[in-house]
This record gives sequence, structure tokens and C-alpha cells, in this order.
Amino acid sequence: MPSYTAPTKDAQFILHDVLNISGKEIPGFADLDRDFTAAILEEAGKIAAEVLTPLNAVGDQEGCRLENGVVYTPTGFKAAFDQMKAGGWPGIDMPEEYGGQNMPYVIGTAVGEFFSAANQAFMMYQGLTHGAASAILAHGTEAQKHKWLPKMVSCDWTGTMNLTEPHCGTDLGLMRTKAEPQDDGSYKITGQKIFISAGDHDMAENVVHLVLAKIPGGPEGIKGVSLFIVPKLLVDDDGNLGARNGVSVGKIEHKMGIHGNATCVMNYDGATGYLLGDMHKGMRAMFTMMNEARLGVGMQGLAQAEVAFQNALDYAKDRLQGRDVTGPKNPDGPADPLIVHPDIRRNLMEQKSFAEGARAFMLWGATLIDQAHRAQDADADGLISLMTPVIKGFLTDKGFDMTIQAQQVYGGHGYIEEWGMSQFARDARIAMIYEGANGVQALDLVGRKLAQDGGKHVMAFFDLVKTFCKEEAGTDGMAEFVGPVKNASKDLQAAAMYFMQEGMKNPNNALAGSYDFMHLFGHVCLGLMWAKMAKASLDALASGTSDPKFHQTKLATARFYMSRQLPMTATHLARIQSGAEPVMALEAANF
Amino acid sequence: MPSYTAPTKDAQFILHDVLNISGKEIPGFADLDRDFTAAILEEAGKIAAEVLTPLNAVGDQEGCRLENGVVYTPTGFKAAFDQMKAGGWPGIDMPEEYGGQNMPYVIGTAVGEFFSAANQAFMMYQGLTHGAASAILAHGTEAQKHKWLPKMVSCDWTGTMNLTEPHCGTDLGLMRTKAEPQDDGSYKITGQKIFISAGDHDMAENVVHLVLAKIPGGPEGIKGVSLFIVPKLLVDDDGNLGARNGVSVGKIEHKMGIHGNATCVMNYDGATGYLLGDMHKGMRAMFTMMNEARLGVGMQGLAQAEVAFQNALDYAKDRLQGRDVTGPKNPDGPADPLIVHPDIRRNLMEQKSFAEGARAFMLWGATLIDQAHRAQDADADGLISLMTPVIKGFLTDKGFDMTIQAQQVYGGHGYIEEWGMSQFARDARIAMIYEGANGVQALDLVGRKLAQDGGKHVMAFFDLVKTFCKEEAGTDGMAEFVGPVKNASKDLQAAAMYFMQEGMKNPNNALAGSYDFMHLFGHVCLGLMWAKMAKASLDALASGTSDPKFHQTKLATARFYMSRQLPMTATHLARIQSGAEPVMALEAANF
Repeated sequence: MPSYTAPTKDAQFILHDVLNISGKEIPGFADLDRDFTAAILEEAGKIAAEVLTPLNAVGDQEGCRLENGVVYTPTGFKAAFDQMKAGGWPGIDMPEEYGGQNMPYVIGTAVGEFFSAANQAFMMYQGLTHGAASAILAHGTEAQKHKWLPKMVSCDWTGTMNLTEPHCGTDLGLMRTKAEPQDDGSYKITGQKIFISAGDHDMAENVVHLVLAKIPGGPEGIKGVSLFIVPKLLVDDDGNLGARNGVSVGKIEHKMGIHGNATCVMNYDGATGYLLGDMHKGMRAMFTMMNEARLGVGMQGLAQAEVAFQNALDYAKDRLQGRDVTGPKNPDGPADPLIVHPDIRRNLMEQKSFAEGARAFMLWGATLIDQAHRAQDADADGLISLMTPVIKGFLTDKGFDMTIQAQQVYGGHGYIEEWGMSQFARDARIAMIYEGANGVQALDLVGRKLAQDGGKHVMAFFDLVKTFCKEEAGTDGMAEFVGPVKNASKDLQAAAMYFMQEGMKNPNNALAGSYDFMHLFGHVCLGLMWAKMAKASLDALASGTSDPKFHQTKLATARFYMSRQLPMTATHLARIQSGAEPVMALEAANF
Repeated sequence: MPSYTAPTKDAQFILHDVLNISGKEIPGFADLDRDFTAAILEEAGKIAAEVLTPLNAVGDQEGCRLENGVVYTPTGFKAAFDQMKAGGWPGIDMPEEYGGQNMPYVIGTAVGEFFSAANQAFMMYQGLTHGAASAILAHGTEAQKHKWLPKMVSCDWTGTMNLTEPHCGTDLGLMRTKAEPQDDGSYKITGQKIFISAGDHDMAENVVHLVLAKIPGGPEGIKGVSLFIVPKLLVDDDGNLGARNGVSVGKIEHKMGIHGNATCVMNYDGATGYLLGDMHKGMRAMFTMMNEARLGVGMQGLAQAEVAFQNALDYAKDRLQGRDVTGPKNPDGPADPLIVHPDIRRNLMEQKSFAEGARAFMLWGATLIDQAHRAQDADADGLISLMTPVIKGFLTDKGFDMTIQAQQVYGGHGYIEEWGMSQFARDARIAMIYEGANGVQALDLVGRKLAQDGGKHVMAFFDLVKTFCKEEAGTDGMAEFVGPVKNASKDLQAAAMYFMQEGMKNPNNALAGSYDFMHLFGHVCLGLMWAKMAKASLDALASGTSDPKFHQTKLATARFYMSRQLPMTATHLARIQSGAEPVMALEAANF
């Protein structure tokens, strides 16, 4: 059975030594000193390891079941859910007004990684609720907020996102679900939604569905889509639960992974719904949820990579197989541990350098969200908006790859379900798909975000890298980190320039390179994070840290990323610069 | 439910237009004219599509079960197995003397791809039998061959390979299974073997296990390992089935994929076994099976990529979602098909260019095996021995990646089991692990094959690429293909040179780059294949082919590989040239 230990020390290093969060001028951040965050991280780590980790395999093996219209979650899920609620974890970064603890988003993200690593399928019930609550918070009327939020912040009621229909996923303009206005101001919702994560279950008193639907007579396509609150049980004005609404579970999907989460087909048969936000502006409201959800999904990529890495590392240290070619390392044993072998090292270092780099990227992104929301910083908002598809797409692609690499360390034992390594890969796989498949993330990045506000945000990103490189170019010991980051950033700039010049002639010249661009961007971000971590570790060593090994390890891992991962940017650039022709040459019929 | 159409046209193009097999001076090849191979490929393709494909999902969903010591295969497997036997497919490339059809290995490989694509788990019963029969053919006494081979060639009896034990996989020197000599010349085999594919089942009268074990008192470690024939049911001298031998199934493993194949824990309790080949030379005998098995596994990588690609392509043509940014392609419909989108194209072209390139590589490799075995060509033997780890490692890594990319085209529909795309990925995943995990392939390539016979074979490979490039450099239309292949080959040579120079100082400088080298080598091979296919298509177009579209498509796909895949060689080289230091810097304890 796999184990998990929350990487609290690494999170602390990133939050304080690298990001210096308590020094940031963002409301609420001054409280975030080392002791405060340590206490939260330790407590979250404990619950992740002791409560959620043991249920991960249970969820995978049992799955959810639908019996007589009722969805049952796996053994132990409800008790754990109650424990999470009792600890106040679901509302950690929600407003106090609605029962939350009002901590910054970066803290929610840091602990969210631990919980997701321990049990992704379980955490999705809470994660979807968080997203739905955020949408109501941003777009609901005061009455709606007071009616729905307190119960959602506590997770007494959970939430869902209903977008996809059998014939449309990415292209929501094709949607058929209808919302017919009623005399009392409510709507009757009719249609079928599929792939609804946490669609129904036995852990909450009520489920609050946020449903996209079209009001008849509205504009065609995506411009005629509105968002509705559709509860499983109707709620009266005093907050009492009433009759069952016209919404039911058609079936639970049989999936590759995340079996512990009930992915439902939801049937709406004249269900009562309440308009959330403006009529026909449902996509805007939904995007509030989706951007947050995309960051959360990127975090899942990192989380699965981390837990898979931890187990692969343990196995590589324990399993005796073969001898170190440079001489036995375990001469009294029958063989040396796997970790002596260079290719096993290469594999482990790829995992380690990804997970730690991704964690820094994720937490940096989360502070930008806080800066945007808490300090009303439009530049931070623009920057994180630009990087959201990179966080989602790059971290989930790489996160999945890392679970596959971790599985590989186990050989045949990785392929049988007994050791749990297969589950990490199967669970991680979904993150590349949901909340917008990664190809759609690449399209969002290149087709929309890059040129947003006249390209201002990508220029700001380049400036940020340039400034860092300039500042640190002369710092003792930093040359070996600054050089590769500078080169990688130049590749990214060259790619952006190519898109600008050639995309004008034919947009496909940009779009055909969008996926490579997303990965190129991701490498530059992780390179930058590694350079910043190297700087923090050099500073710590120079000032006589009590834990030199930790910082020397950071430096060695940073060197690995620079020499073994960043060279990938050149290949991405070469692919991008080959343009649309090789990609688009064939007629569809000739494939 | 996924469908499958055997790529017979592409196989014919490779066999005849590219490899010119009927013109080769290899015994038996003169018969292989276009009509002859077309008839075989068509028939095999028909069985693959009509008999094996429908059982693929059945096998995945039902799996195998063990009841009272008896293993049952999924519904329909036995009838299909009987049909394969009746058609003579299991013995297609086995000697006539034992009931085979004596066709070249390349023909067995060509049809093997179709069968594996249609149903990998099913085909493993036959594939393992083929491997075991090959080992008996190569190392058995005349009496052993006559006793075991006829029934194995027909698949009345199936075969297995028993190597792995709970505590040892790659490092077989740690093996504990014992073989105690008996007065009658037989041995009593005692021990436990795990991960035994096709270990037992209800489709054959008998199972012939090839088991590695140690004869007490023999040399320590790997040098004291011998190979034994251990039948499930004892067989008398007249070939009659007798008593049950002391071998039983401990359990069937619960795996990520290939559920239709019974992966067994096999318990040997004083089972009667017969020495195969020389005492203590079991590894040599086993390697006869393993090299063949490794090529077969590489072929599985290609096969799963092909079938996944076919289904992704169909979906991309059918599913309407979004609009072509350069203008609607399906103006009368509610949206355009997915295939109009550049990133979907990029994805599909990666799959297509991999599958077709890999097919050429595989079939070229198979002709080298025929040249080595049928024409006793030691150079061909050396070359295929060098390329075996590349075929196994590169084709299974990339094959798996391609199933993941194919799954991605389906979005959420790829993640639910209903559409079958998840199964392709889950089944393909094993190929990176069994018959030597891909890290072990890389080690075999760099640590052993590269320097074999004084580096003669890798030099022969470089000469072969150089000669081709020189010959075609001036050919009309070939410059765009020759250039990239030449550059990629230079990267490969630089990497080999780096290993030679730096590996002398420290072997880890070579081993830390072994995985990248395997992939770099794979890209050069596929690049070479694509250049050769381009040449064949240019010739066909110049001579007025009746199917210009096919050849224009080949050229476009070749261009894609050159511009979008071959640039990867530079990154692999950069990683390799960073040496061992970044990989080995950390103490194991500091990870």
C-alpha cells in the first residue's frame, strides 16, 4: 500500500525563503509568518497522511454505486468528509461572513496539494464545492449568497459544475439544455448533462448544481447561455430543505480512474433553477469557476506526481537489484538498491525536479491570485490569467508523465494494482482532460491570452525574467542558473515573435505550435522557479543555515533541471518555427 | 466500441516498395511476391477485425478467473483460439517439420501486428507459445523437439516463460527456485514464479512452462541458472498426456490492463522438469526467447498506437466541435469536425507518423532476423542485436504515448471505459515493462550492444545511414529528407563519441545518458525509415502510380516527421552531453 508524507518543509521553503509571503503587501499576508503556516501545513499533512491516504485505494477498488437513485460513496468516505468539515478545511480561504476562515488562496492551495496527493477522488467533492461557491460569491445576489454560501462553505451542501452534454464539451454553444422562465422568477431546467464530477453522493445533505442552459428566444450559440443554481433538494427562504427537485442521476460512469468520485450523468426534468448572474452571460460566470478550477487541476498534476515520486523513491531505496557499476554500495547484501543505477537516478531526478519546481510555480501563481483579488492588482490578474493555461496544461501533462515514470521504477510491480502505482497514473490521467482538455488550454494561451491587452502580460512576464536574470547575473554562484533560464526565455520570446509575424499571415501558423508553446512556457516558468530556489538556497547557505543538506540538495536539483530539462525549449522552438504547413498539409480524407 | 482495420496497404507498401522483400537473397523470400503477401495480409486482417477485435473489450471487462485451481479465460476466447489454430496462424513462421508453414519471420511479424492491435491480451497466449517453442527449437535435443514442438506449433499446448520471482526481476542471479537432479535424469523443480503471462488457462490441453532454476551446488548468481521444460500435465514418450505435474496457480494478478491474459503466480512443488540446453547456461537459452519476445513487444507498442490512432482519427472526423479559424469547413452543420483544428492535426500527425514509421522499422528489423537466421548473415545478426533494445524501448515508450494522445482526442469520452480508448492505454502500458523494463533496454544498448564486437555494429549502422544519404543527396525531391536524417545521425554519432570518451573516465557518464540515447537512436531509425518511404513514394509518383494520393500522403507525413519529430535528437544529445554529474550528484539519503 502506498504511503504519503506531506512535503511541508519544501512548502515552507517556497512560501518563506522563495516567495517571502509574509513580507508581501497583500491584505492578510502579514499574518502568514513561518510558525503560523507551519502549524497549518503540519496539521493538513497529518490529516492527508492519516485520514485520506488510507482511503485512496479503497475508493479505487470500491468505486461509487448507484442504487435506486441513490449514490453511495466508498467505505470510509463519509466519516473522513465529516472530519474535514469539522476541521474547517473546506472553508479555509472563504470569507468569514459565510463561515470561512478567510485565509489567502495561497494557503488553500498549499494544503490542497497535500489533500489531493493523498486522495484526489475524495478531494474533488470539496474542490467542486469550492468552485461553485466562488461563482456564487462572485455573481450571486446578496440573497443568493446568504441562502447558499454558508452551507456550501461548510460543505454541508456540496456543489457541482454542469457544462458538458453528450454532443458538446468544448463547444458549449451547441448546448441543448433549456431554461424556461416561470412566473415566480425561477426557471424550469430540462436537459441532460454528462461527466458531472461529484454529481451526487451520500456525504452531504444537499447538492447545489450550477447548470449552464439556454433560455428560449435568446441569442444563438454561446452568447445565449445562462447559468443557474439548481439544488437537488429545494430550499425555502429560511434555509430549510424541502421537496426533491426534478434532477436525478442517470448513471455513474465507469472510468479509467478517480473511481472514488461519482462522475454522473445528470438528468434535469423541469427542475427548478435560479438565474445566477446576468441573463445570457452564463459563460462569464462559469469562467469564474473554471479559472479557479484550472489552477486546482494543475495542482492535481503536481500532487499525483509528488505522491507517486515518494513511493518510487522508497521502492528505489529498498528494492535490491543488480550492482553499482562503479563498485558495490551494499556489499554485505545480495545486491545494491535500485537507486544506485544511473538510469533510475535520472528517472527519480526528473520526478523530483518536476514536483518541487511545479510546487513553486503553483504557489507563486496562487500568490498572484491573492494579489489580484485582495490587493486589486490588475497586473497580477493579467499575469495569472496568462499563466493559468500553462499551469493547467503543463503541470497536468508532466504530472501524468511523472506518475508513469514512478510506476516504471517498480517494474512489473508497478503494473499490478496491489502496489497502488497504477492508480496514481490512472487518476492523474483525467487532469489532462477535464476543465478544458490540454489542447484547449494551449489554444486559450496562444489564441487569446498571448495577445490580451495588447500583449501586455506576456511582455510583463518577459520583463520579470529579464529583471531577475539581470539582478542575479553577477551574484556569486548564480551564473549556472541564470544562463540557462535566459536562453530558455529567449526561445520563448522567439516563439512568441514567430506567432506574431507568421500568425498574421495565417492563424494556423500560431495554432499549430500552440501545444509546444504551452510546454515551452512551462519549462521557462519551472526554470525560473528553480533559479529562484537556487538563489534562496545560496543565501541560506551563505548566512549559515542550520540545514545545509536541504539547501545543497536544492542546488543539485536545480542543476539537474537546468542541464537535463531546460534543453527541451530548443526543440519546442524548432517545432513551432516549422509552422503550419507540415501539420496542415493533408486533406482530412487522406489521413 | 472501437473498430480496427488492418493497415494491409501500408504493410504492402513497406514490404515491397520500401524493403523489396521478394528481391532479397534470403531463402524463402523469392516466394514473397505482392499477390502472395496480399492474400496473407488480407486474410489476417479479416480475422483481426472480425474475430479478435470484438473480443478485446470483453477480455478487458471480464478478465480471467481462478476457480478451484482452474483458470477460465473470458467469454469467446476459446472459440477464437480454436479458429486461429484451425487457420494455422500460430505456426506461420515455424518449421514444416513440426507442422508450421515455414514462412519468413517478417511475415509472422506483419500479421502479428494486426492480431496484437486487435487484441493484445489474447495474442499473448500464442506469442508466449511461439517464444517458448523457439527456445526449444534452438536449444532442445532432437527428442525434446519431437516431443514438444508439434503440439506447441499448433498451439494445442501453449508455452510460458518463468523468470521473475517475488524478490527478483531484472537481477535473476538472486533467484531461489531450485532444480534437484533425479536418478532418471529429470529434475524436481521447487519455487515460486510471478508475473507469468498466459500462466494457465482453459484454451489448450497442456501448458509447457520454461522455467529458470538453480541446480544446487552450481555456480553462484546468474552463472548457476539453468532452463527447464516443466509441463502442466506430464507427457509420456508416445506423447500421451498423463498425470498432473506439481505446478499450480497461486493467484491471478489484478492488473492495470491486459485483463484478458491470465498473469499468474506459479507455484512449483517438486514439479518434474527436463533440462533444456546446457546445465548452468539457462540464461543463454532464455535469451533466445527474450530477444524474439523483445521484438514482439516492440511490435505491441506499434500495434496499440495504430489501433488507438485509427479510432482517434474516426472520432476527429465525426465529432463536431468548434469552427476552423480560417473559415467553416462544414457550413451547413452546427460545427466543424475536430480534425479542422490545428492542434488536433498536430496530435493526429504525431500518431500517424509514428505508427507508419514504426511499422517500417519493425518490418526492416524482421527482415534482418530472417537474413541472420535463414542466410546465416552474421552482420545482419549483429545489427538487429544492436537495434533490438531500440525497437523494444523506443517503440513501446512512444507507442504508449500515442495511445495517450489518441485518448486525448476524445476528451472526457476518452477517460470513460465505454469508448475503449482507456483500454488501449492501459494495455500498451505493460509493454514498457515486461521483457526487460525500458531502462534495462537502454542499459543493454549502451552498456553492452554499443561496444559489441568492437563497436562494429554501430559503425555498420552509421555507414548504412551515410551511404543512403550520399546516394540520395542528389535525387530530385530527396534533399528535404536527407538533410534532417543526416543531422539526426550526426547527433547520434556525437552521443556515441561522448560515451566512448567520457565513459572511459566514468561509466556513469554513459549510463546516465542511456535512456536519451535509446530515444535518440529510435528517432534516427524512424527518420531513416521515413526518408526511405519518401524515396519509394517519389519513385512511385515518377513512374505514374495509379494511387498518387497514397504516395503524396506519405511524402506529407515524412515531412511532418522531419520537421516536428527529428528536432528532438538535439535535446537528447544536450542531455547526454551534460554527463553523469547532474544525475548522480545527490546522495541517496538526500533525495
